[in-house]
Amino acid sequence: MEITLETPLDMHLHLREQEMLTLVAPFSAAQFAGGVIMPNLVEPVDSLQRLRAYRSAILTACDGAVFHPYMTLFFRDYSQQELMAARDAIIGLKLYPAGITTQSEAGVRNFDQIEKTVALLEELDIPLLIHGESSGFVMDREQEFLPVYERLATTFPRLRIVMEHITTADALTLLDRFDNVAATITLHHLLITLDDVAGNLLQPDLFCKPIAKTPRDREALRRAVLDGHPRLMFGSDSAPHPRHRKECLGCAAGIFSAPVALPALVQLFEEADCLDRLPIFVSTNAQRFYRITPPAKTVHLERLPWQVPKHYETVAPFLAEKTIAWRLKPSGSD
Amino acid sequence: MEITLETPLDMHLHLREQEMLTLVAPFSAAQFAGGVIMPNLVEPVDSLQRLRAYRSAILTACDGAVFHPYMTLFFRDYSQQELMAARDAIIGLKLYPAGITTQSEAGVRNFDQIEKTVALLEELDIPLLIHGESSGFVMDREQEFLPVYERLATTFPRLRIVMEHITTADALTLLDRFDNVAATITLHHLLITLDDVAGNLLQPDLFCKPIAKTPRDREALRRAVLDGHPRLMFGSDSAPHPRHRKECLGCAAGIFSAPVALPALVQLFEEADCLDRLPIFVSTNAQRFYRITPPAKTVHLERLPWQVPKHYETVAPFLAEKTIAWRLKPSGSD
Repeated sequence: MEITLETPLDMHLHLREQEMLTLVAPFSAAQFAGGVIMPNLVEPVDSLQRLRAYRSAILTACDGAVFHPYMTLFFRDYSQQELMAARDAIIGLKLYPAGITTQSEAGVRNFDQIEKTVALLEELDIPLLIHGESSGFVMDREQEFLPVYERLATTFPRLRIVMEHITTADALTLLDRFDNVAATITLHHLLITLDDVAGNLLQPDLFCKPIAKTPRDREALRRAVLDGHPRLMFGSDSAPHPRHRKECLGCAAGIFSAPVALPALVQLFEEADCLDRLPIFVSTNAQRFYRITPPAKTVHLERLPWQVPKHYETVAPFLAEKTIAWRLKPSGSD
Repeated sequence: MEITLETPLDMHLHLREQEMLTLVAPFSAAQFAGGVIMPNLVEPVDSLQRLRAYRSAILTACDGAVFHPYMTLFFRDYSQQELMAARDAIIGLKLYPAGITTQSEAGVRNFDQIEKTVALLEELDIPLLIHGESSGFVMDREQEFLPVYERLATTFPRLRIVMEHITTADALTLLDRFDNVAATITLHHLLITLDDVAGNLLQPDLFCKPIAKTPRDREALRRAVLDGHPRLMFGSDSAPHPRHRKECLGCAAGIFSAPVALPALVQLFEEADCLDRLPIFVSTNAQRFYRITPPAKTVHLERLPWQVPKHYETVAPFLAEKTIAWRLKPSGSD
């Protein structure tokens, strides 16, 4: 049995730099026609110069595979001139509250002071991508941030806003109220809850920001995605860390899901008997909301179980040592 | 500045076995006149013979220090004869739901089948100590278990029941309804919330069962303890694991708080300006509820800041590398 996907997209992706970039980029390039590249490098990507260098490094790491890196700039105060110069090179600006996740120290500390730049984004029709978490209690952070989304969506009704990696039923409720708002959802937030992270033994490989939430939240996310919600886009948030940052006291947040993303999504949609809606989630919603035309790319998966390796070099992948019913079919084979 | 505590008690303590026992027992023996010893060894302590051997090993590890190990038997179906034979050697039976925490696989799977043994406990006036968690969502487990406590407290009104290591405001509410119920509270649940475990980097050294809860829960626990609640007893639940069980994928649950227990408690009560109520929590409530007369032991602490070591041999302690304002005064010094 086989399934063909046209132009699948990963709308939230961390590719890192240097050796890690070289290791992880091919997994995404093998499965997706393009991906939205997060700018939170050790030194944030907040200039066109750095962005171009990073894009070039990504293309090198993709080694000729068809993969369009949709670049983002790290949110800061930008001038109109800067944004106009960057407009054609980016899919949007990515906003992090300061310190909320890996390498976000340069993020926004005061949300009352962002309106000038946000107004420019609306004017120039540049999407704003947001890691929406407060600095409150870890299980409440996304919910506490929702009023910020609401204020932005109301104040800037023509601004396209993406709620990145939403994890709660409450975020879905907000999403439904604003046509200018879309959201990404990860594979792992469709599969795990806090129970998987900390319900039995503690699992650093399943620790991420935002943290996995309750069974009720996961059910709401699944239902919305499987029902073909028109403004939900797949974004893996694949975020690799080497073992020494995971198997220690003080483990980094991030799940490396790139190697299993499409196979596990196909399995999820197949189990729910709605494989016909998978393209909505992994391609068409993103193309419509972002108004992008990615390179045409046909990806084949076959129903052939495989066991996910324990590690890819120094990095433990999501679903390590688990068996997935579907696997990517090497291009050219049949 | 100095404070003197008479006969402090740790009413919930994991001392482990062999090398670990030798390493950790002296910390408890230096601070406390006695402690309630948990029976969840690799092979559970569920016979008088095993209990006596374990007690003997503990006394050897305490190396002559005044420390009374109040022994518990692992809950199973016991005959009246067994319980009568054990009565003078134990402070109670410890009940674990099967699989709920470290080495609890032999625990109770069906709570409808425990009443015969529980009725014997009531008849023989042997306290029942319970790890009260359901197998539900990790943040809801204690709350979901409360009806079991309620049913036991109602069905067996003369049975003394201890809700071990409670972590929620809801458990306190239940506690207040039943005179035959008491509870232990740990040091760490008075100090940390889930934010400390997983709000920034993931901290395996702060991962324990029951998992740390919300700021609201912590505040309720603190208030009850600091107000001198008459049925709350200190139980450290100090539960050491070697580094390789903590710094890995799949980290064991348990916080090694024994080395810092009394100094950190004194600091907490001092900061809340109610040092006069510390003896209620660390000694008198336990003596009254359990009707025990521990060996007289006077423990001195002095206000002299010290930095907690990063490790004690292979084990990272609670509050590692933090500074505590109080420290234990070596006996004999002045």
